[in-house]
Amino acid sequence: MSQQPPGSPAPQDSSTLSALPTLRVAVLGAGTVGGEVLRLLAQQDAELAHRIGARLEVSGVAVRDLGRDRGEHVPASLLTEDAAALVRSADLVIEVMGGIEPARTLLLDAMEHGASVVTANKALLAQDGVSLYEAADAHGVDLYFEAAVAGAIPLVRPVRESLAGDRIQRVLGIVNGTTNYILDAMTRTGASFEDALANAQQLGYAEADPTADVEGHDAAAKASILASLAFHSRMRLADVHCEGISQVSAQDIAAAERMGRTIKLLSIVERVEEENGERISARVYPALIPDHHPLASVSEAYNAVFIEADAAGSLMFYGQGAGGSPTASAVLGDVVSAARARVHGGYGPRESRYAELESIPLEELRSAFYVSLTVEDRPGVLAEIAGTFSGYGISISTIHQELLEQDEQSGEQARAHIGVSTHRALESAMTASLDVFSSTATVLSIDSVLRIEGE
Amino acid sequence: MSQQPPGSPAPQDSSTLSALPTLRVAVLGAGTVGGEVLRLLAQQDAELAHRIGARLEVSGVAVRDLGRDRGEHVPASLLTEDAAALVRSADLVIEVMGGIEPARTLLLDAMEHGASVVTANKALLAQDGVSLYEAADAHGVDLYFEAAVAGAIPLVRPVRESLAGDRIQRVLGIVNGTTNYILDAMTRTGASFEDALANAQQLGYAEADPTADVEGHDAAAKASILASLAFHSRMRLADVHCEGISQVSAQDIAAAERMGRTIKLLSIVERVEEENGERISARVYPALIPDHHPLASVSEAYNAVFIEADAAGSLMFYGQGAGGSPTASAVLGDVVSAARARVHGGYGPRESRYAELESIPLEELRSAFYVSLTVEDRPGVLAEIAGTFSGYGISISTIHQELLEQDEQSGEQARAHIGVSTHRALESAMTASLDVFSSTATVLSIDSVLRIEGE
Repeated sequence: MSQQPPGSPAPQDSSTLSALPTLRVAVLGAGTVGGEVLRLLAQQDAELAHRIGARLEVSGVAVRDLGRDRGEHVPASLLTEDAAALVRSADLVIEVMGGIEPARTLLLDAMEHGASVVTANKALLAQDGVSLYEAADAHGVDLYFEAAVAGAIPLVRPVRESLAGDRIQRVLGIVNGTTNYILDAMTRTGASFEDALANAQQLGYAEADPTADVEGHDAAAKASILASLAFHSRMRLADVHCEGISQVSAQDIAAAERMGRTIKLLSIVERVEEENGERISARVYPALIPDHHPLASVSEAYNAVFIEADAAGSLMFYGQGAGGSPTASAVLGDVVSAARARVHGGYGPRESRYAELESIPLEELRSAFYVSLTVEDRPGVLAEIAGTFSGYGISISTIHQELLEQDEQSGEQARAHIGVSTHRALESAMTASLDVFSSTATVLSIDSVLRIEGE
Repeated sequence: MSQQPPGSPAPQDSSTLSALPTLRVAVLGAGTVGGEVLRLLAQQDAELAHRIGARLEVSGVAVRDLGRDRGEHVPASLLTEDAAALVRSADLVIEVMGGIEPARTLLLDAMEHGASVVTANKALLAQDGVSLYEAADAHGVDLYFEAAVAGAIPLVRPVRESLAGDRIQRVLGIVNGTTNYILDAMTRTGASFEDALANAQQLGYAEADPTADVEGHDAAAKASILASLAFHSRMRLADVHCEGISQVSAQDIAAAERMGRTIKLLSIVERVEEENGERISARVYPALIPDHHPLASVSEAYNAVFIEADAAGSLMFYGQGAGGSPTASAVLGDVVSAARARVHGGYGPRESRYAELESIPLEELRSAFYVSLTVEDRPGVLAEIAGTFSGYGISISTIHQELLEQDEQSGEQARAHIGVSTHRALESAMTASLDVFSSTATVLSIDSVLRIEGE
């Protein structure tokens, strides 16, 4: 039976460990993730040394405010406000401060001075990935960012390395925990978006300013990173179509349920084969997926990513997409890879963009839709709506009609709700149909337009 | 808009491609997986060259019988019966022939002659992983085997690399498609094991001799590989406790359903923390898991692996665990990694066994059980059974009792079926209780003993 305490190496190895070379690690940021990174580095000191073949020595932790107490895992002696000096003397820089600046300048500076970089910063990667990759190339260092997409879920490495011999066709991902928590709560309780958001804020699942999450910006940054990796092309953040969940209503959730579907905020990246070649698409929107789809049962703040590849078929990855400890797990995996390369030579995957596929504008894509309208309840309205869709080449799959309650005394025109599901049709055709409905007197309001995916 | 045909590189790159160095690739075996590997290598020639920075040239395909036609993807001109000569002149050897010999000798020979190795051979790895790792070390080459566990699902790389900065506590895997197909069919249709097996054989999901699958040997080989990787220790195949599914009855399936559980063949590898240190366990057996567990809904021949790690929390990976094309996808991912290292320096992860944790014998583990007995239906029997369990420190969680139908005229003693679920108890205590029941006149038969997991 093993006699050493859990997590420690065999005693005879201590001398071996102290003989190992040392790598200087600079940590930028000491927030939730930074604190966990430091905790794990300390707790697993010996284990990591075994895995790497070198000891990791934290040379400093850059913070904005030296005065704040940061808990036991962030020793005050390591804190510094001089991040620039710190990164210049490091072998490895772990960036968990977030935001574009000063993170961008610090990482470029770090690489120029010969450090490899591990970052969890999706916003920076989505906006400036190109210059980061170029700096890594120019200076012969590594750039790792597993934690930037789907937190603890190993996703970047599988896409870049495990599937490097395959052709990815499509990725459907739930990559934002906040919006999944809100949509899941709306589905379970029938709450409105506003109430579910307020509750998520109270419980710490949503930030005080929830814009980046609920408007899909965070998911769009991840989609741009994923599309670039999956299709060996550069996908600019500006080319990612992005819709958030703030317009999703309790009525939409109920309608989805009636159709055996669930509403999820999806990051979709897709290869679109065309007559003369192929283009790629990256988009984020709330979509209806069938209840039996593996993504439909992803609850609370969990993340999951569904990948379709030519040879591998369907794959799914599931886990925690955020939080200090899960994110730190992904960061440390990258730290081990980058550190191993410092010790043993070689380097990690570079930017792969040989395919140079262009992005296809949303209007040229074909999607299936669910459209919800409030209309005057009189003969001919349904035929009018169906006629408009048909005129734009949109074929209807199901229609659900429901008379709305009205005040008998008001003398108002009777109103009905119509929910239409369509087969796949050009986005531009749907836009044109909706334009017609906007100027049609019998259509009182267009209540929602959601896409249907995963069928 | 992109004008090149799908999958081709941009035209201006052709000259760049032909200027790249070439790596000689030997393929051992031209069965279902080998054929798919060759198809993908040919189809993605240019894409792989971009990803690697070198062209892959298949220098030969070793087969046992030159005469057999092997379809369009296996050019007759590349076939050879002289595998030994082939591997000695290769930069990379892809082994997809299976079996222990001659695969073992060929791979050792290949590494001695400087080739890196990609293999899908779980039986060989489980039996001779140590000597393969040592040969890779001694000769400074790489040994990759993503396809050996869970087919197309990226699992080896995530465990070895993505989670390299974390501590894995437990892995629960459905890693054998044949047995999952059979158990899923039994659950859906109520069929007996024998009928479900016969049907699986007809449909090609089970082999004519299904022993390696249904008796759990295949799953045990994968468990030994997974445990070694997850716990940085050597887990010998002989130390993997292995039970198959041939004893699972339609009654067990029905009993599980009544309890809100599903029976799955699980490969379990686990870190067991003890007072004076820790040991590890690897075991394979059919177990009852709650219907709401993510593994419960894995249907047909799909594989899925559920990982619990200290920092990452719960992760799940899901996909196709077998088949030519999914397995080839995993093989090619490894080929790209091994080839990149040949071109750019560095090498892949080595065997990590610094933790040197010992294996804990099954008897010393604690499990929750479901035990099904046929007993004489008379007062006191239930108390007798409960008393025996209690005497061995086993605490009962639920009991289900059911009078069995009998021939009124026979004069036979009335019989009942008793299904007992226990809390976690020592395996040795359960064995002792079952020994008592075997010699107790009122217990007519011990019909099944299954463990309960995932709660």
